[in-house]
Amino acid sequence: MWPDKRICQMFNIEHPIILAPMAGPGGAELATGVAQGGGLASLPCAMLSIARIRKDVSIIRHHSNKAINLNFFTHAPQPHDNAGEAKWKTRLTPYYEELGLDPDKPVDAVNRAPFDEQTCSLVEELGPEVVSFHFGLPNEHLMQRVKDAGCKVIASATTVEEARNLQSRGCDAIIAQGVEAGGHRGMFLTDNVASQSGTMALLPQVVDSVEVPVIAAGGISDERGIVAAFALGAAAVQIGTAYLFCPEANVPPLHRAALNNARDDNTTLTNVFSGRPARSIFNRVIREVGPISADTPPFPTAGAALAPLKAVAEAQGSSDFSSLWSGQAASLAREMPAAELTEKLARKAQELLRKLAG
Amino acid sequence: MWPDKRICQMFNIEHPIILAPMAGPGGAELATGVAQGGGLASLPCAMLSIARIRKDVSIIRHHSNKAINLNFFTHAPQPHDNAGEAKWKTRLTPYYEELGLDPDKPVDAVNRAPFDEQTCSLVEELGPEVVSFHFGLPNEHLMQRVKDAGCKVIASATTVEEARNLQSRGCDAIIAQGVEAGGHRGMFLTDNVASQSGTMALLPQVVDSVEVPVIAAGGISDERGIVAAFALGAAAVQIGTAYLFCPEANVPPLHRAALNNARDDNTTLTNVFSGRPARSIFNRVIREVGPISADTPPFPTAGAALAPLKAVAEAQGSSDFSSLWSGQAASLAREMPAAELTEKLARKAQELLRKLAG
Repeated sequence: MWPDKRICQMFNIEHPIILAPMAGPGGAELATGVAQGGGLASLPCAMLSIARIRKDVSIIRHHSNKAINLNFFTHAPQPHDNAGEAKWKTRLTPYYEELGLDPDKPVDAVNRAPFDEQTCSLVEELGPEVVSFHFGLPNEHLMQRVKDAGCKVIASATTVEEARNLQSRGCDAIIAQGVEAGGHRGMFLTDNVASQSGTMALLPQVVDSVEVPVIAAGGISDERGIVAAFALGAAAVQIGTAYLFCPEANVPPLHRAALNNARDDNTTLTNVFSGRPARSIFNRVIREVGPISADTPPFPTAGAALAPLKAVAEAQGSSDFSSLWSGQAASLAREMPAAELTEKLARKAQELLRKLAG
Repeated sequence: MWPDKRICQMFNIEHPIILAPMAGPGGAELATGVAQGGGLASLPCAMLSIARIRKDVSIIRHHSNKAINLNFFTHAPQPHDNAGEAKWKTRLTPYYEELGLDPDKPVDAVNRAPFDEQTCSLVEELGPEVVSFHFGLPNEHLMQRVKDAGCKVIASATTVEEARNLQSRGCDAIIAQGVEAGGHRGMFLTDNVASQSGTMALLPQVVDSVEVPVIAAGGISDERGIVAAFALGAAAVQIGTAYLFCPEANVPPLHRAALNNARDDNTTLTNVFSGRPARSIFNRVIREVGPISADTPPFPTAGAALAPLKAVAEAQGSSDFSSLWSGQAASLAREMPAAELTEKLARKAQELLRKLAG
């Protein structure tokens, strides 16, 4: 049925459709729906406690016997940068004053931990079929433990150079993340957003540069994008934004409203929410402080000083300081349950493949 | 043979492949090759004299009886901005000094004229089958004259909003120009490069928003991109960068050398060469002054002050100040004559369409 069956066989899934792990909106319910629809169920673990990951996996396993993908961030923990965080707080002080907040009150640390010994032990315990990493790979020792646990390992590349790096370090498949993609860019050998490629250009260049199967990500929200990805040489697609429209996604109301009004031209790459480039729908803090600010402290600490602003603004019905993650093709998405969406995407993609050939 | 025949029928061409008009590299010889290969021969007229356009069209007509597309810029002529040009010259003065040039010596005006009464009369005289515009459309009066002359009119859109604007003003087809595309972006209702969409996301959103056929541009350098474009809803593709590798393209040696070493991640949108955003391979002036500079005078005058630097540097074998136009998929291109490339792209795209359907 599918022109390339390598990923379906490698992960033992029916359809070559991978739920993009989206820390925040993605949880057990969304993953379960995708698994039931025949895709790969991804659980974003970067913001979850060990106990919560264990619980979510048991929920997914309870409702489905299909493959699971556990996703982790692999940023190098940065030393505490007091000067950098003070500079960032100073940049945001006018907003603290506007909202009646005390800029001198300490802020809570953000909860995005990189993959480490503890989470690696959890992977060994839970035995997911797939583990995916964002921002490069963990060290050789941890990587070997994951592979020894029988997990297939995938990770995101935003350039050909990153794809080659991931292959040489043992990835079983590579996600080519075009610039259209929502949320955090997986870039780890460059920090230059100005040179990042669109999916149409990046994907075939990555396919030509590695031996392992390539998974397309970025700008794919319906069957047209899926078929285009296969035409460009992909063996599967990873879809995020379209799944944000599912009722199972934990999308706050203000974010959901922004997604419902998304256009091709109202997102941008910005580092203001975390310190790393990520694609969000425009809002006030992006327009006034970003989109790319030189004042952000290292990932993920930039989010800490924004959190009080976000909390107060959201309570007033404003998304001025909220990350409104979205890819560039949100307007193509339609609200429906995740299992139904997965089945529909697969069915319509196969119909389009036949139709194109005449 | 092709899944969508609307553009082939509208323009009376064999293959839905349009040579991107590239002012500088593109001329009669390249256009003739594409016409002979079954694609649409485009002649970029923005930097040509009336006499030269007339001569080039007669050369193409002599070698082929196929359709011709004459391409014009439609930027609004800006009042002379002495202060702006002086500011820009000041920004470049260190380079003048480094190269032993006198920054106070007046520079020649640049030769990029917008479509006007005179070129419109030439269109009426020459009767090209297609006229394409970049940076929006000419005024209603000129537009009507072009349509009354029997020409089909196409133009570039970089957003859905621009596509709707072009359709409402009478375009027969619309080029959806993804952010991957090389050279000048056709943007005319926005100047925000940070929100420009990749082809994968832009194309289906434009297709869903207009009734007229849509031509895909940006990141398409081989048969995979062509098939992907049809999957996304395009009725044709416009290809530029891949044709720069043809022997018929007037590409200076330093530009050709840069193209031969192009990678997915070494181009960027920059305004330093003209005052408008355009995609070029990185070089020194982009890195040090751009990629987007707030100091450029209005299009196209920024190029004037760069010209002396470019001339001296190129004579020394350096492309430090040269525009090195390229899309993001140059590495997929292979050197061959334009007719052969056009035929090969068409043949391999049709093979891939059949292969994908199994």
